[in-house]
Amino acid sequence: MADRLPDSLAETTDSKILLAVLDGVGDVPSGELGGRTPLQVAESPNLDRLAREGALGQHIPIEPGISPGSGPAHLALFGYDPVESCVGRGVLAAMGIGFDLREGDLAARINFCTLADDGSVSDRRAGRISTEKCRQLVEVLSRASVPGVKTFVNPVKEHRACVVFRGDNLSDAVDDTDPGVVGRRPRPVRATAEGAERSVEVVDSFLRQALDLLEGRQPANGILMRGFSTYRPFPSMEERFRLDAAAAALYPMYRGVASLVGMDLLEAGNSLEEEVSAAREAASSGRTFVFLHHKPTDSSGEDGDEAAKIAAVEVFDGALPDLLQAGFDVICVTGDHSTPCPMKQHSWHPVPVLIHGGPQRSGGSDAFSEREALTGALGTFYARQLMSLLLASAGKLRRFGA
Amino acid sequence: MADRLPDSLAETTDSKILLAVLDGVGDVPSGELGGRTPLQVAESPNLDRLAREGALGQHIPIEPGISPGSGPAHLALFGYDPVESCVGRGVLAAMGIGFDLREGDLAARINFCTLADDGSVSDRRAGRISTEKCRQLVEVLSRASVPGVKTFVNPVKEHRACVVFRGDNLSDAVDDTDPGVVGRRPRPVRATAEGAERSVEVVDSFLRQALDLLEGRQPANGILMRGFSTYRPFPSMEERFRLDAAAAALYPMYRGVASLVGMDLLEAGNSLEEEVSAAREAASSGRTFVFLHHKPTDSSGEDGDEAAKIAAVEVFDGALPDLLQAGFDVICVTGDHSTPCPMKQHSWHPVPVLIHGGPQRSGGSDAFSEREALTGALGTFYARQLMSLLLASAGKLRRFGA
Repeated sequence: MADRLPDSLAETTDSKILLAVLDGVGDVPSGELGGRTPLQVAESPNLDRLAREGALGQHIPIEPGISPGSGPAHLALFGYDPVESCVGRGVLAAMGIGFDLREGDLAARINFCTLADDGSVSDRRAGRISTEKCRQLVEVLSRASVPGVKTFVNPVKEHRACVVFRGDNLSDAVDDTDPGVVGRRPRPVRATAEGAERSVEVVDSFLRQALDLLEGRQPANGILMRGFSTYRPFPSMEERFRLDAAAAALYPMYRGVASLVGMDLLEAGNSLEEEVSAAREAASSGRTFVFLHHKPTDSSGEDGDEAAKIAAVEVFDGALPDLLQAGFDVICVTGDHSTPCPMKQHSWHPVPVLIHGGPQRSGGSDAFSEREALTGALGTFYARQLMSLLLASAGKLRRFGA
Repeated sequence: MADRLPDSLAETTDSKILLAVLDGVGDVPSGELGGRTPLQVAESPNLDRLAREGALGQHIPIEPGISPGSGPAHLALFGYDPVESCVGRGVLAAMGIGFDLREGDLAARINFCTLADDGSVSDRRAGRISTEKCRQLVEVLSRASVPGVKTFVNPVKEHRACVVFRGDNLSDAVDDTDPGVVGRRPRPVRATAEGAERSVEVVDSFLRQALDLLEGRQPANGILMRGFSTYRPFPSMEERFRLDAAAAALYPMYRGVASLVGMDLLEAGNSLEEEVSAAREAASSGRTFVFLHHKPTDSSGEDGDEAAKIAAVEVFDGALPDLLQAGFDVICVTGDHSTPCPMKQHSWHPVPVLIHGGPQRSGGSDAFSEREALTGALGTFYARQLMSLLLASAGKLRRFGA
């Protein structure tokens, strides 16, 4: 899995690396911003100073033209080949809530939904029920039992839950039941490849019982399942790169992917301030790698809200001085992918990378932006190669060969 | 074959892509042009406007330093790994004239030539006999018969013909008989690898009969054979990328390579104007991908004629407004490789790429040239990755992973 070179050369040192991910930060120029991007418009004196003192470049998340989901995009940033190590949403959801997955477990995301009398989906999120309500309904679903399989239903947040099936011969070649739109019936449980007969049987049995158990419980009288995926353990960042790694992330999805590569999950509260505190504490307690995740740059991009995206960058910039107090030797600020406001979705465009600390070819960049990144000293590289640059900058990679 | 990512993510949409290939368009600066390239000197207001509105970059045809033939260079542009899918000139020649190749067929290019009394080649093109004469001679050659094999001899153009052998166990590990220069005898039919004994036997038998049949028919009293290649069907662009693809190309070679990847061949007449009309008609009839080939940039490069190459760019630029009327959503202008005038041959130098349409990081380029392409927002990538960028720009690629 992934490139063997950094793995075989990595050595344990005390130096500390911070990887701060401004989710979806890359954008495209906008007419409303005078042909500039939110990153160009944002007042970000701290990022700009780091850009001047450090070096910029840009990463291609997967391959040119490929728009990644958050899972593969983050795995690439963590140094894992995003194609080989591609993992489904079910596993990420289960990891994100700290569920102790075992090899071969089949996991899926659940959305509570509202079904109309004719069986069609009238609300894919069941009116965004409260997390408390979600917990109660999960209790109800836990009565479902499939012979030969252990079933674990877990609340996630609001209308979101996840289920894990533990048993023999569970393939993840099972299609989503979520029709993706309202007004249609949930799709039947179907295999997407041969050898998934047992999984289809298990999931179908669970789903039928779930519908019986939820009957009459409007607005949450149904469930939609997606992201079927089986768990296989990954070599950890400790094993691969000799890093004592921890994650400060608020959303289960990102906690899940960090957990997948063996990062410890920090208590990061509910705000960027608390994430920053957690990162500082982690650094002072001797962690050698901290991943800090900042979501609003992505959510604002998905909303097409340029003002909000500018603000999201500025909020992060405002938190930087505090973060710099933590004493990281190498700081990297980047995104996992671009989420251009005009597109309102993840895109394939390269993502600016800033590395500060360690010996860099600095002096070539004036500000942290897509345009400056294009001509920065780090050049253009694949996201999965970033980790080697960080390890090298932090003096954690031995020379290759005699 | 090739990367599986765009294939697995491509979906059918109505958006239309134009890939306009200015064959051999890349060049190197010339002292006679004041240190500029033909592309820099050419007056091309339409290309420059598209460059300003869209984004530039450059592709490496195969690998740094590798100068490609037209076959692999075009296959790469079409999204096929040019090394894995490398195909010989024989197959391309047969495809180019519309011959219905079957899997396992062995094809080769034929040049009628003039042999001197001592058996050496005195003219590798038999005085460029007329296509009509070529047809007559092909009739004569069709009398040749090899037991156990069906032999199809076909005229191509002027002194060019091709032959297809259909039979069992035909390997293409057969060396060219063309000595490449005049004054030498044709080379004997030889295997280049084990397992080609049957092919050598078949080709040798055909060649001996051909020489008997052509005896005394000066200037075309001999043939030279090259580009031995067996046909294996390629997955089509429809299968791989869900594209309804068509080609407007005048020369058999390019029609052949387009045909190889399943493009339909448009009636493109004999001029750029007719190609443009064909492309417009294809777009209005619902085609979602049109390949348009412009040859004079390459021929002028091969001739070392800078003025002609400048003119060839300007002629294409003049045709652009008409082409833009076709309503393509994404327009890409690039070359298959560079053919620098000072070199008079194909080269390895990166080739400028222009993409107009779809969400681009525009605003960074002023003109369509090698220099501007180097610092363009698309960066530098391999030709085989271009198709992903075009599909993404046209909104034809789903997100990768959860």
